[in-house]
Amino acid sequence: MREEFHGQLERLGGELTGMCGLAAESMRRATRALLEADLELSERVIADDVELDEAGERCEEHASTLLATQAPVATELRTVLATIYCAVKVERMGDLAAHVAEIARRAHPAPAVPPELLDRVREMAGLDIDMATRLAALVSGEGAEGGFDELRHTDDAVDALHAELLDAATGAEWTHGVAAAINLALLARFYERFADQAVSVARRLEFAATGTLPG
Amino acid sequence: MREEFHGQLERLGGELTGMCGLAAESMRRATRALLEADLELSERVIADDVELDEAGERCEEHASTLLATQAPVATELRTVLATIYCAVKVERMGDLAAHVAEIARRAHPAPAVPPELLDRVREMAGLDIDMATRLAALVSGEGAEGGFDELRHTDDAVDALHAELLDAATGAEWTHGVAAAINLALLARFYERFADQAVSVARRLEFAATGTLPG
Repeated sequence: MREEFHGQLERLGGELTGMCGLAAESMRRATRALLEADLELSERVIADDVELDEAGERCEEHASTLLATQAPVATELRTVLATIYCAVKVERMGDLAAHVAEIARRAHPAPAVPPELLDRVREMAGLDIDMATRLAALVSGEGAEGGFDELRHTDDAVDALHAELLDAATGAEWTHGVAAAINLALLARFYERFADQAVSVARRLEFAATGTLPG
Repeated sequence: MREEFHGQLERLGGELTGMCGLAAESMRRATRALLEADLELSERVIADDVELDEAGERCEEHASTLLATQAPVATELRTVLATIYCAVKVERMGDLAAHVAEIARRAHPAPAVPPELLDRVREMAGLDIDMATRLAALVSGEGAEGGFDELRHTDDAVDALHAELLDAATGAEWTHGVAAAINLALLARFYERFADQAVSVARRLEFAATGTLPG
């Protein structure tokens, strides 16, 4: 029974790891679609988001079965509940990647990001993708300790880029019109929210491991 | 044991009902702060959001204790898991109300919404507040059936207003500048997201009651 339980718990962790990988990949492709104004790729990213949604539903279903059949307590219960919580957040990360692709699609055939800001957006996206990739490693137990602090640190950098892009869109030198400014503000927000979700996943993983929610 | 279990489950429902009420109230006050450019009220709404966060943490803790001590299965397990899921979503609704208040604060002393759009924003906020109030009733078991369909219907009206406000901000007649356009686009998005969360809570409540996720 215990062995079976641990096998199920491990599979559950594997599912969540896979979801983090999907979220990273989805944000990578959405950003490529955005920066290269690639309509076809945008549409694929939007359509593929259903995969992450389905993975999330499966993961939650398996967690629920595990609760019903094994009735875990203490650390193990915390781990199962953390998986449910994290699956919801990682699904949301996928939604945000799809939102980035939607902006690329809406702006097409014009590029959604002005040329002078491409590097900033690429940098912000790179931090997001890195965070999702780190999460996948954290879930599979690599360097779980300190993971939350590390991701929070990266999140500060994302927040700074978010503020910088908002300043650019509302500054006196902005020459790209209102619609482009709104697109940029929304994009900056999507990348920032993606990073926020990643931090809250890392926070919950640390709670599952230690029993204390980091501040 | 069973009686105690049902008492605990009922208290859990009561906590979630209270959270829905807090989310409705928070959006009501945030919108008043926004429409009346009331800085002090904006700041109170932002500060008070911690109450909903804490209520969410308590609710989840109680759900977790209930799982550990009672090991429910079938419908009862589904109900406890739905409560955890919904608490996360309702907490998020509170965050979105605080985001509305943040826009009011950022724009202050100027009003964040141009006079000709006040009615549209008021209407959108009214639908949101109504949805959160309906959720509170749904959680406490009033009119649970059909609740999801009803909220989805209201959500369509919210989506239409979202599109209308975005059109206004990017239209040729827009004369309020880029920063105001970005504020309006973000506001429209926050109200729209609030409604989305409400729909996903109603969807989950229906699942808890029937065992089938509505489409």
